[in-house]
Amino acid sequence: MSVGKRALVTGGAGFLGSHLCERLLAEGYEVVCLDNLLTGDAKNVLHLQADDRFTFHKADVTEPLNEDVTPDIIFHLASLASPVHYSTYPIETLRVGSLGADNVLELARRGGATVVFSSTSEVYGDPEINPQPESYWGNVNPVGPRSMYDEAKRYSEALAVAFYRHYGVDVRLARIFNTYGSRMRLDDGRVLPNFMVQALTGKPLTVYGDGSQTRSLCFVDDLVEGLLRAAHWQSKLTKGQPQTGEPLIVNLGNPDEATVLQLAQEIIAVTGSDSTIDYKPLPGDDPQVRCPDITRAKKILGWEPKVPRSEGLRRVVPYFKEALARGS
Amino acid sequence: MSVGKRALVTGGAGFLGSHLCERLLAEGYEVVCLDNLLTGDAKNVLHLQADDRFTFHKADVTEPLNEDVTPDIIFHLASLASPVHYSTYPIETLRVGSLGADNVLELARRGGATVVFSSTSEVYGDPEINPQPESYWGNVNPVGPRSMYDEAKRYSEALAVAFYRHYGVDVRLARIFNTYGSRMRLDDGRVLPNFMVQALTGKPLTVYGDGSQTRSLCFVDDLVEGLLRAAHWQSKLTKGQPQTGEPLIVNLGNPDEATVLQLAQEIIAVTGSDSTIDYKPLPGDDPQVRCPDITRAKKILGWEPKVPRSEGLRRVVPYFKEALARGS
Repeated sequence: MSVGKRALVTGGAGFLGSHLCERLLAEGYEVVCLDNLLTGDAKNVLHLQADDRFTFHKADVTEPLNEDVTPDIIFHLASLASPVHYSTYPIETLRVGSLGADNVLELARRGGATVVFSSTSEVYGDPEINPQPESYWGNVNPVGPRSMYDEAKRYSEALAVAFYRHYGVDVRLARIFNTYGSRMRLDDGRVLPNFMVQALTGKPLTVYGDGSQTRSLCFVDDLVEGLLRAAHWQSKLTKGQPQTGEPLIVNLGNPDEATVLQLAQEIIAVTGSDSTIDYKPLPGDDPQVRCPDITRAKKILGWEPKVPRSEGLRRVVPYFKEALARGS
Repeated sequence: MSVGKRALVTGGAGFLGSHLCERLLAEGYEVVCLDNLLTGDAKNVLHLQADDRFTFHKADVTEPLNEDVTPDIIFHLASLASPVHYSTYPIETLRVGSLGADNVLELARRGGATVVFSSTSEVYGDPEINPQPESYWGNVNPVGPRSMYDEAKRYSEALAVAFYRHYGVDVRLARIFNTYGSRMRLDDGRVLPNFMVQALTGKPLTVYGDGSQTRSLCFVDDLVEGLLRAAHWQSKLTKGQPQTGEPLIVNLGNPDEATVLQLAQEIIAVTGSDSTIDYKPLPGDDPQVRCPDITRAKKILGWEPKVPRSEGLRRVVPYFKEALARGS
């Protein structure tokens, strides 16, 4: 194993994490995948177990981490990420944002690892500007129904930046926008899996409000490429030395914006479904618009999404069919 | 000791905490004062040690709490609170906002205590509306130079609200605006102690920017009265049952707004100083305005400040003179 090629992926058995583990193995990394399987699923990484460079640890990142794990790079993806799950586990969501992030950053501080730290477009809340650049401070209700997630992630960012400035930990913050692909949970609760499941089972597609709110969906392979580029970016930081200014903070997402109603219609079409649309009232603090400004990712990482929505939707349909057939 | 009269005050040896401990003893409470003395000072509560209803524990609220402490009410005030201190201890500031709050809320959950949870006007950041009502979501830079404090407190609020909703913990959130009085640290770094020390030592008063930014200063006795009223407010909550909606969230502060320049002039006058004014560039993310809307406190708690600034400034001068004379 060459130096610089040991990766730890927290939340590695989740939707995004499992795709990242796959890609890292393909790039020649040794991969330790850590997941508490609260919303991740061991079967997402079952096919990787045959590779002797891959290790799976069932562990909770909010507990003290195994000292034997000495990664060169940490991809910190562990979190509850969908409203359905973080509403069910609000305290766990807050703790993974504080304790989990703290454990990862301490591991990086002790061992000198680089950290690609997953944040979220939710730090922008219900944005007053669209698209959102990284310099936007956000519009988040600290005590609202989504605050367990949004504030946990904002806290994580503040902690990561404090470790960067105070201890010289090499942190790169990726603010990840809506992403889709295989291995999403059927009960994820977000717009794309909801619509896919409803369309493929012939049920009406539930649109909240009038469906004019927008979402921007990024295909998972594009997102994973963005995370890799953030990892391989050359930082000017001297590790272990206090820093001024900001670490790399970069939006990753697909700026191709669609209304929720438009997505519903596209998914009905791509699945060949005869489902109709069912309108329901908007839940509290649901963002009206959400679209990344990816100027910085293009400029600094040379990254932009390659897979158009029409293609991505087509590629993901077989996964949802199979998952529905096996009932999970 | 009557039931319902055992209070735990975290951060009880700090400026505000020590005044609260004093008042609680006067109201007939048994008081456990907990402080790690990072910015608190044991001499602030030395005069209370003779009272056998008063106990001081030197302990860090981010460590597991002593299980023998079984308060009826917890006043959670522990935090670094001034920019000078939270910039020096960014990680500690973030951890008291997460771990410290979590330990306090868990103690309340296990023992059924009511929690008066101190938050801050800093959750509003650099506000776009003035004065700030509790419904305002704030304007905070999650990765800015003040984010270790602002985001820690916003996280604390989200956690407190999650404990209220999920576990039915009886939480009351007090968003405390700038407060002044005796026992402020000379090195506090905020505008009033800075000006007092400069005026009383004949040095020029440092005004950042042109001094047109505003502050609203509340005299400590008024603030303590507000905390007591928040504690004694009758909640409709059934402890231990999941809740919907919000707990009591209330601004406590004095809405009498003054520009920083005006404060400088008033403090020069009240101290009889012949100091001049020295203008320096504004630091990053310094709030331009900060004034509480106290409509809710008036309506729900029947509270409003009684001590006008002219009187409060006069009352606090002797403390700063003494503190300067003894060199701390």
